[in-house]
Order: sequence, then structure tokens, then C-alpha cells
Amino acid sequence: MGLPQQQLCAWVETPGPDATIAFRDIEVPKPGPGEVLVRLEVSGVCHSDHHSIYGNTPMTTHIAGHEGVGIVVAVGSDVSDDLLHSRVGVSWLHRACGKCEICKVDYTHCPHQDNSGRNVPGTFQEYCLADAEYLFQIPAEIPAAIAAPLLCGGITMYGALVRADLRAGDFVVIPGAGGGLGHLGVQIATSMGLQVIAIDSGPDKEAICRDSGACHFFDFQKSRSSLVEEVRSVAGGIGAHAVLCITGAPSAYESALAMVRSLGKLVCVGIPPSSYRLAISPFEILVRGLRIIGSTVGNRSHMSSLMDLVLQGKVRPTVEVYPFSELPEVMKKLEHATIAGRAVLQIQK
Amino acid sequence: MGLPQQQLCAWVETPGPDATIAFRDIEVPKPGPGEVLVRLEVSGVCHSDHHSIYGNTPMTTHIAGHEGVGIVVAVGSDVSDDLLHSRVGVSWLHRACGKCEICKVDYTHCPHQDNSGRNVPGTFQEYCLADAEYLFQIPAEIPAAIAAPLLCGGITMYGALVRADLRAGDFVVIPGAGGGLGHLGVQIATSMGLQVIAIDSGPDKEAICRDSGACHFFDFQKSRSSLVEEVRSVAGGIGAHAVLCITGAPSAYESALAMVRSLGKLVCVGIPPSSYRLAISPFEILVRGLRIIGSTVGNRSHMSSLMDLVLQGKVRPTVEVYPFSELPEVMKKLEHATIAGRAVLQIQK
Amino acid sequence: MGLPQQQLCAWVETPGPDATIAFRDIEVPKPGPGEVLVRLEVSGVCHSDHHSIYGNTPMTTHIAGHEGVGIVVAVGSDVSDDLLHSRVGVSWLHRACGKCEICKVDYTHCPHQDNSGRNVPGTFQEYCLADAEYLFQIPAEIPAAIAAPLLCGGITMYGALVRADLRAGDFVVIPGAGGGLGHLGVQIATSMGLQVIAIDSGPDKEAICRDSGACHFFDFQKSRSSLVEEVRSVAGGIGAHAVLCITGAPSAYESALAMVRSLGKLVCVGIPPSSYRLAISPFEILVRGLRIIGSTVGNRSHMSSLMDLVLQGKVRPTVEVYPFSELPEVMKKLEHATIAGRAVLQIQK
Amino acid sequence: MGLPQQQLCAWVETPGPDATIAFRDIEVPKPGPGEVLVRLEVSGVCHSDHHSIYGNTPMTTHIAGHEGVGIVVAVGSDVSDDLLHSRVGVSWLHRACGKCEICKVDYTHCPHQDNSGRNVPGTFQEYCLADAEYLFQIPAEIPAAIAAPLLCGGITMYGALVRADLRAGDFVVIPGAGGGLGHLGVQIATSMGLQVIAIDSGPDKEAICRDSGACHFFDFQKSRSSLVEEVRSVAGGIGAHAVLCITGAPSAYESALAMVRSLGKLVCVGIPPSSYRLAISPFEILVRGLRIIGSTVGNRSHMSSLMDLVLQGKVRPTVEVYPFSELPEVMKKLEHATIAGRAVLQIQK
Repeated sequence: MGLPQQQLCAWVETPGPDATIAFRDIEVPKPGPGEVLVRLEVSGVCHSDHHSIYGNTPMTTHIAGHEGVGIVVAVGSDVSDDLLHSRVGVSWLHRACGKCEICKVDYTHCPHQDNSGRNVPGTFQEYCLADAEYLFQIPAEIPAAIAAPLLCGGITMYGALVRADLRAGDFVVIPGAGGGLGHLGVQIATSMGLQVIAIDSGPDKEAICRDSGACHFFDFQKSRSSLVEEVRSVAGGIGAHAVLCITGAPSAYESALAMVRSLGKLVCVGIPPSSYRLAISPFEILVRGLRIIGSTVGNRSHMSSLMDLVLQGKVRPTVEVYPFSELPEVMKKLEHATIAGRAVLQIQK
Repeated sequence: MGLPQQQLCAWVETPGPDATIAFRDIEVPKPGPGEVLVRLEVSGVCHSDHHSIYGNTPMTTHIAGHEGVGIVVAVGSDVSDDLLHSRVGVSWLHRACGKCEICKVDYTHCPHQDNSGRNVPGTFQEYCLADAEYLFQIPAEIPAAIAAPLLCGGITMYGALVRADLRAGDFVVIPGAGGGLGHLGVQIATSMGLQVIAIDSGPDKEAICRDSGACHFFDFQKSRSSLVEEVRSVAGGIGAHAVLCITGAPSAYESALAMVRSLGKLVCVGIPPSSYRLAISPFEILVRGLRIIGSTVGNRSHMSSLMDLVLQGKVRPTVEVYPFSELPEVMKKLEHATIAGRAVLQIQK
Repeated sequence: MGLPQQQLCAWVETPGPDATIAFRDIEVPKPGPGEVLVRLEVSGVCHSDHHSIYGNTPMTTHIAGHEGVGIVVAVGSDVSDDLLHSRVGVSWLHRACGKCEICKVDYTHCPHQDNSGRNVPGTFQEYCLADAEYLFQIPAEIPAAIAAPLLCGGITMYGALVRADLRAGDFVVIPGAGGGLGHLGVQIATSMGLQVIAIDSGPDKEAICRDSGACHFFDFQKSRSSLVEEVRSVAGGIGAHAVLCITGAPSAYESALAMVRSLGKLVCVGIPPSSYRLAISPFEILVRGLRIIGSTVGNRSHMSSLMDLVLQGKVRPTVEVYPFSELPEVMKKLEHATIAGRAVLQIQK
Repeated sequence: MGLPQQQLCAWVETPGPDATIAFRDIEVPKPGPGEVLVRLEVSGVCHSDHHSIYGNTPMTTHIAGHEGVGIVVAVGSDVSDDLLHSRVGVSWLHRACGKCEICKVDYTHCPHQDNSGRNVPGTFQEYCLADAEYLFQIPAEIPAAIAAPLLCGGITMYGALVRADLRAGDFVVIPGAGGGLGHLGVQIATSMGLQVIAIDSGPDKEAICRDSGACHFFDFQKSRSSLVEEVRSVAGGIGAHAVLCITGAPSAYESALAMVRSLGKLVCVGIPPSSYRLAISPFEILVRGLRIIGSTVGNRSHMSSLMDLVLQGKVRPTVEVYPFSELPEVMKKLEHATIAGRAVLQIQK
């Protein structure tokens, strides 16, 4: 089967607050050394795509997206033909340098990394390039629309939970638990035996949190000033073992340390405005033995374990599938937080 | 040998900014259940004694001090006679509750703990009570004046370095490295194979840092605005693996995260004014995979290892020994940071 | 309510292969310093009770049992009255020395420990002594017969799984998974997100394994020589991440390392004949990066987490309750492995 | 500078017990995709080269050697030119597959790895091929003859000590401490603050152990049956925290677990005859909470840290430099253990 010369993409003009999205035809790229070309079937839509398109520190490419699932249709000169026709996932971490001191320890935090839909063209197009080394293999048993949200949302939560280093039976608070990232976090945390205290707002969000396994749910709109006290109360009266702050809302960051017990942890995952600062008390940190942990995405080994959880049926993203052409509408829904679970675009069949 | 009825103590009147220290006779206390009475030979003087005596959140007892070395001369009704005549150390952690969820994991962060010289009478007296379970045995080979600074300064640094979880060859920055706590930190870190980048000011401080094993020394008075850049430069050009912030100076806390590489750690040990807040960027924390870790003192097992380092000659505190009666003068010297290493009071022979 | 002077116990005459069990009246003991007296409601019956009573290295006391649940009815002179009337569990670890180098790191492996029903009288009596420090509090929501098996079986499995240091999604093999210890292991491992490959024999054992959450079951009588190959096949084709060997059967130990992938672990929990030796190849261990880990019981913190899993309904032992008087019959059933789950004696109401 | 067509190598004819070594000219190979060509200056000679040449499971190539230091003189089509002229180390781990489940966790234990001087031509030749991804950069400050032993001996010991997970002040026993691998182990362990108990035989070995930092030395020829007791005696009376068994001598493996305290570790590094089996007691393993850990070589991150220790002067291999032509004599000396430290061949200037 010959490859087409041209393909459709969702082109972002002037990324930033005034960005516009237009569908247009562009050339299908050719894989260079170490690269493969992926024919994309679907792509998840992540909150950080919204940041990259409309945010104050926007993307430097014109094509967003970093949760793509598809088939390898061409390989670079030095890439093994074995990869051809394999079903793969294209994720946020397009490529790490592989050589720096950070890569030697944890390549997911490589400061020289390239990111899909951030500084290299992403997955909101029919065909994208990917680095053969940083692809994930997708088992045939997992439908494409289910696999997509794992590639960023899922692996982000799995990595954050591994880095939180908790134990079955522990309490973990997840603010923003009813969103695309959040409900995956609830499912993965529950699968690890953690008792999830979910925070979000409204009956729909409560329903998805409970369905995902949350033991407790608090509506932050209703609880307001008593929220911290309510969380502490259900967590043995002394607070949870950790807060996974997956929303960028400053209020979530600001109440986090008050929700954990001594020796507790705050895992920073959600991206607040880049100018935002959280005021912490070093005195409290040391007296209570607290920890603050930064986490971006998980690594290859985390992805293997996550796929196993999906194959076992313990993790299964709730998705809403939209035609590729509806990306602009999906962006609006993201703004208003009206998507139950994760939005996934059907790029092509 | 009969015990005296009366003893000399350094009595703090009106703890707080207007505190005064007066030597007076008080009764020798009797050990209750689980307690022992220790005849103190020496006591180290720690910076936090100054806080407890003159600070804004002062101690609730009248006798400060928490680095005492002496001999057990009486035991409570249910305490084994084996402890009699043993040589012991009395430290900051007078007693943990032993029952709470935090104690089950790490008793040094028990929120219900009592502290010597904080809410129970401390070691600036001839005889003090201690809890049999939280005493440390002091090997005969270690002179009392050398042992004293280990009981708070040493164990604090050992605990902080264990919690930092570094590896031989790694770079660690220690602001305030030339002080009583600091030079012990330099010695312990060096004994672990770490490359210490010491920060302090003046040739005396530089000398004690270098003698203690520091690979690099920066004078923060001279370097000023270029300090961060200089530290990063000697640490592989990308920053250290960790900063042990053992001073409470806000400026030290504020430059710490800029001094570490991605995946780097800030260990909070030094006590800043309790109202002080450090402004951190959750975005930076997560993108760079940073960690902030609170640490108070080390545990029993840490103390065993520390004693072994002392017995090997790898750690040996620099001390200045003063008569007990000079405590007020020592407090002044602490204020002006003119003590080389740790001040130790000779309580009695 | 006055305490009786006399009580009923199951007295083991001549512990060892010729042991006999007789019910007789003995004195109710008085708690010494640090001790409490517990009025026992139930006691679980563990395989190691059989070893202690009839084995080649028998107990040195005459009363076996170490999974007792009851109420504190008297406290020693120095023990807080707060403990009176509390609902507690008496377990294998009667008391650790609390002072040795091993206790400083992990008191559950204290070489100087006393053990209930091993060298101090156990829980097969109406009233037993316990050390106030090593008791477990039992939440009111957990029925006594359900709590009993947690005190040895449950905590042993939780501790072993923590020490195995696995991750949600990993494969773990449990030989002997259908027994009293085993089915708890399957439940706890499943609650941690592990994929359990259970090994045992017969449809009843298979049923309890599957009900407990096992993903795979192999009947070792049927599989025989192909067992290793079958396990490897379902575990990604390269073997599991760990084997928890909870049976003392030499054949289970001998096939364990062949069932794990490189970097895999064998956790030794089941007690083989004390003269038994496992022949390992240091060459294989190092080339494959394998680990062998010894684990006895879990610690206080593990018990807290385990209780939380029970309160959540994720772990619930299958028990068969017998009258106290049927202990001899229960011992016979243990020999023939005909008990589904754990046997629990109703000592008194 | 043009590359020669022909080069000198030490060709092993009929690897195995009847192997012979002959120097002969062979073709200089050309780097394929992902490969570089290294002009070797020196190569260390490791005990496992002897195994590979003369052992019962010999190498499947004809050129041994895996501690080569040299300069990159040519690169494969897809390898960055930046590598040209860089100073690099060629080590045992020629290439891992990078794709399997084991690589995702710890590539040094990849079961599909190629090894220099084992199944691909090694460093006993003037020019060798290496995989660009598995090379180590060698800082200019470290002389070639000093760098060579780090590439296998050094990184093996660093990796084993990291995997042993010990703490400054702990006791570690190293049987075979006076050899090429051993004295590096003593130096690295000492640099980590460990108290090394060295075991070897004769005054020369004692001297190199003491010079390398060992606190204690025992001559196994003199101590014989009392060796275990003597080791335990100096290690707090209860045994060391770990034994790093770096010799393949069965007697060393057999006494190891008796030398450690409860919770102690045996790290398997030395290669015994492949048919050798160590008989362990699962009962002892579990009661005492022991661990057995397999370790081959360290990873990239370990090498960075090790290089830092060398640059600090804390680790410096003792080497004996021989002309390339004397490889056969060096092999004889290895057999008789008459080399002080590590033998290094000067391949070319």
C-alpha cells in the first residue's frame, strides 16, 4: 500500500491566547534516522494541549496532540523492519537525549527532551513521526480509544503514584479526581489498594469518581472552608498519606499539605500558571517530616505495568469519542470541564 | 554513693525575647516509671537552645539543653538495673508516644513527642531525667565532650543525609557549613563519599569546612549574586544532587532549588522564623522532578551508624569547652556566630 | 467484674512427635510490669502451631496458639489504665528486646524475641498475658473470628509482600495459595494490583484461590513437570516478578527461581524441615540479578495498613469456626489439609 | 589520518581448557549502524577473561578483553560525529537489547545482551567496535591505565555496593579483597563510609587491603576454622551487615551467611564453577531476615558516580602495566594470583 503525499492536520495558527485552529492539508513527513512514521487512528485530547494551544507559554510547533495510537507504516534507514505494521502509542515524551546525567537516572526528566505537540509536531494529524526508541507497543486486546488516554493521562498517574511510594491501605487525596486525568488516577490508585479520597464538584464528577473506585468524595463547592477538616476526618483523623495534586488550581495546591499527616507527601502533577508560587513553611516541612515530589510522566517500565492493569480490567478509561473535525468544540468543552473522562478524537479508521 | 537532694541548674526566667539566665539550686528529681536519672558531665549547646530561650515561640520549661552526656545514677521502679552506671546520651527526643500511626513508621516525627529543654527540663543542670527507651548508649572510647554534639548536631545531619538518599560521588551543597551543625554535616557527608560544596563566610569558617572535608568552599559574602552560578559550575555545570539547608536563613532556602540539577533535592533542616514562607513553583518542581524533604533528627539505628563513624575516626566534632557558669556568654557567641564548631559546657566532672 | 482464679487451657504434654493435648484447669496469671491480661474470645490455628506441638524442634511452653483476639481485663503496675477494656490481638511476636541493633532497624527480626505459643504460653487458653507494647488494637467493626487470622497469617503475608517490593500489574506466584495463609496472600496481593498465579491442588483449593482474586490457577498434581513452563507462559513468557513461597514443601522452593524472570525475587516465608537445604547457583543468581528475601511477620505499621484493607472489604479471611474443645480434631484436619481457609477456635463468648 | 587496513590482535585458538593465545594480524573492522570504531590504548585484564579463554563454558569469539580505553576514530552512518576523537571506555556490556521487560527496569541484566570478549570480539586488539549507546566517556584527567580497571572491576564493585544498599558506618566483609576486583571494592566501600573487613591471604594482599582502606584484615589460611567467629567478633559481635562475595571460591560462599547479622545480605558477584551449588537453609533465611542479591555490572549512572570518586582521589586502582605481547604471561600470573591489583596491557601508544 503506497503512502499518500498529503494528509489532513489540525493546524494551530499563532499559538497563544489568540490561537485559531484550522484543518488543512500538509505533506506527509518522511522518517529520518531513528524515526518511524505512524498512521494515526485516534488521539486523546489532554488538558495540556489546551495550554499548548492557548496558553501564555504556547507550543513552538503548529500541531498539538500527544496521545496518539496508530500503526507504523514506514521506518527510517537504520530502524529495524520489525517495527513495520506494529501497533504503537505516541506520547508526550517524543525523545530524550539519552546521554545527559539526568537520562542516566530517569530519562523522563531529561532537560533536553523533545515533546510531541510542544516543540515537535504532535498527533492531531493523520500521520506523525515518532522516535523508534520512545514508542510504546500497544497490545492488540486494547481498543485504540481506550489506549489513547493511557499514553499521557494514564502513564502520568501511574508514574506519580509510583513516585509517591505508598502502600496498600494508605489514604491518597486526589483533587480534580473527576477529570480525564483524575478518574484514571482514581482507578490506578484503587488498583494499588489505596483508599482514594476524591475531590471535585457536581453529581457527574462524583459518579465517575465513585465508579472509578473512590472510597470518599468531597464536593469542594459545598465543603469550602471545612474541606481540609473533612478530609482529615475520614483519613484516620490525622490526614492522608499523600495528596496527588493533578489539577493546576492554586487552591488545590494551597490546601494540600494541611490534608496530609506527618510524613505525608504532596505530589505535584497538575500544571498551575507558570507564574504561580506556592508559599510553604520550611519549619512545618521539617517538623512534620513532609515531602514534596515533582513528577511528569512515567517511564517504559511503568507503561508495561499499566498495560497489565488494563488487560486485567482494573483500569479502563472512560472516554468520549469525537470526530477529528470537532477538535475546536472539544477544546471549548475542556475549558468548561464538561467532558466525562477523556475526550478522544477519531483521526481516521 | 548517696545522691544529693539539691543541684545546680541554669534557670531561664521568662523564656522569650526578654529571657534571663540565672544559676540556682533546685531539687534533684526522682525517676518515675520508665525513667532514669542521669548525672550529667557535659552538655552541648545547640542553636535551637537559643531559639528556645530567646525566641518568639519559646520553651515551656525553665531548663534548656538537649545534648547531655552522663551516667545513669538511679532508675524508675520498672526499669532494669542493668542501666545503672551506664554512660548515656540525653537528646532532643525526650520521648515519643510509641503508639500513634506516625510512631509506627518513624518515631522521630511523632507529633506527640516531648523534647528535652523544650517542654521537659533539659540538660543545663547537674541531674536530669530521661526516658529509658529513648536514651543512647555512649561507647567508652568517645570522650564526653566529643559525644555531646553528636546527640543533636550529629544525629540531625546523619538523619538528613540518609533521608536525602544520595550516592557516593554525588554533590551536596551545605549552606552554613562552618557552624556547629554544619561542620558535622560536612564530615558525615564526606565520610559517605559525597562531594561537599560548603557555603559560609570568612577564613575561619572556610578553614573548618576544608578541614572537615569540603571539596569546594564559597563565601556567600563575596560571591553574592553569582553564588548560584558558581555552585552549579563546580557541580558538573548542572547543579548539585542535593542542598542540605541547615541554616534558617531565608536567603539560603531561596537559592537552594536553583543550585540543584533536575531530580535534585532540598532537605529542610535549618529552622527559619516560624512565620517565614518559601515561595516555590509547582511547575518547576514537576518539570524538573525536584523533591523537598523535611527532616528533624535521626533514629536509633542512625545513631549506631554515626557512633561507628566516630569510632573509626571519620567524624570528630570540633568543640570549644566552657565552664557551665559561662552559658550566658556562650549564648552571646552563638548570636554572633563566633564559635568554631560546637560549644560544650562542662557541667561537672 | 472479678477475675476468676482458674481457667481452662489446652495443655500440650511432651511437645514433640509424641505430644498429646489435654484440656485442664490452670491458674489465671497476673500481669507483671509492662504486661496486660487478655480474656480471649477466639484464637486462630496456624500451621506453625502444628510444628510447635508435634514438630522436631517443639515449643518450650505447654500452651500453643498465637492468633488470639480478646479484651484487656487487667494491666501491670506501670501500664496505662487506658488499655483496660480495649479489644486487642495477641500475635506470634510476644515481645522483642527493643534494644539490640536488629530492633533498631526491624524489630520483627529481633533475635532475642519471645513468641506466643513457642517459648511463652500462647492463646489456646481462656486468659493469656501479653506485652502492652506488642499488642495490636482491633477495630470494633471487625468480628473476632475474622480478625484472628490477620494476626499471624495476614500480617505475615502483608509483610512478605511489602518486602517483595513489587508494583501494581506485576506477576506474583503463590505456591500453597489455597491454604489458610495462602488465600490471605492471594487477597492481599490482589488488593495491591498484583496478578496472582496461584498454585495448589484440587477443585476446592482452586475455588478459594479464584474467589480470593487469583488470575491464574495451576494444579501442581496435574501439571507436574510442565508446571514451571506453564507459569512462565502466563507471566509474559519470561516468568513472574516474584514467588512467595509460603509452603514449606521442598518442591515449591526448588522450582521457585525457575519461575521468575531476570531481576525476579524469591521470598521465603514457608517453613521447611529445619534440616532442609535449597541448592542455589550463585552463578545464576548473579547473571540473572535474582534476589532471595527472608520474611517472618510484618510490623505495626503493616498491621495498620492491613486493617484498613479489611475495613475496606478488600481482604476478608475465609474461616471455619470450631469449639475450643475440638482443637485435637482441628490439628488432624491441618495435617490432611482439609480446612478451607483458616480454622478459628471459639475459646469463650 | 587514514586508518590502517590491518591490526594486531591476541587470537585465542580453540577457547576452552586447551586454548592457546597467538598474536596475529586481522582486518580492522568497519562500524555498522549505531557503532563506533575505537583505537585502543590499553586494556585491563580481568579474571573473567581467564574464564572466557580457558574455562568450561568458553567465549564464542576469538578475541577476549573488556576493559579497553581508547579514542573513537570512526563512526557508523547514523552515529553523531560528535563522538569522533572522544576518549571512551569499552566494557563488558557491549550492547543490551533495549526493548525487553528487563531492559525497561535495569538494562545491565538484559538477558539478550552481547558481551565484549565473550560473544563479540573484545579489547585484546588494536581496534575494536563498540556500540555508541553503551560506551563510557572517560574524563581527560584520568590516565588510561587507571581508567581501564574501572570499566569492569570498578563498575562491578560500585554496582554491587549500590545494590547492597548499606549505610555509612556499616560493616561489609569482602573475601578476596586483595585482588584486582577486591582492592577496588575496598576503596569504593571505604569511600562510602563502610567499615571493610577484608579477607585474603599473605602479607602482600594484606598490604594492598590496608592501603585501600580496610579496617580489618583476616588471613583465611591462618584463621581457618575460626574465621567466621573472628569476623563476627569485630563486627559488633553479631556479624557484618553484608558480605560481598567477589571470589568464586566455594568456601567463601559457604561461610558468607554465617558472617552476617540478622537482616544481613550476601551479594553474589564472584563467579564459581557453573556447576557449583550453594546449599542454603530457607528456614534460616526467613527467621533471620537474610537477603541474597545477585549483581553483575553497574549502570551508566553508577559509572558517573564512580568517575567522580576517582577524580576526587578517593578511588585509585593499583595497576601493573604489561606490554600487549605479555598477555600469555599475565594469564599465568592471574592463575597464581601473583598480581598486586589489576594487570593492564599497553596495547599501543
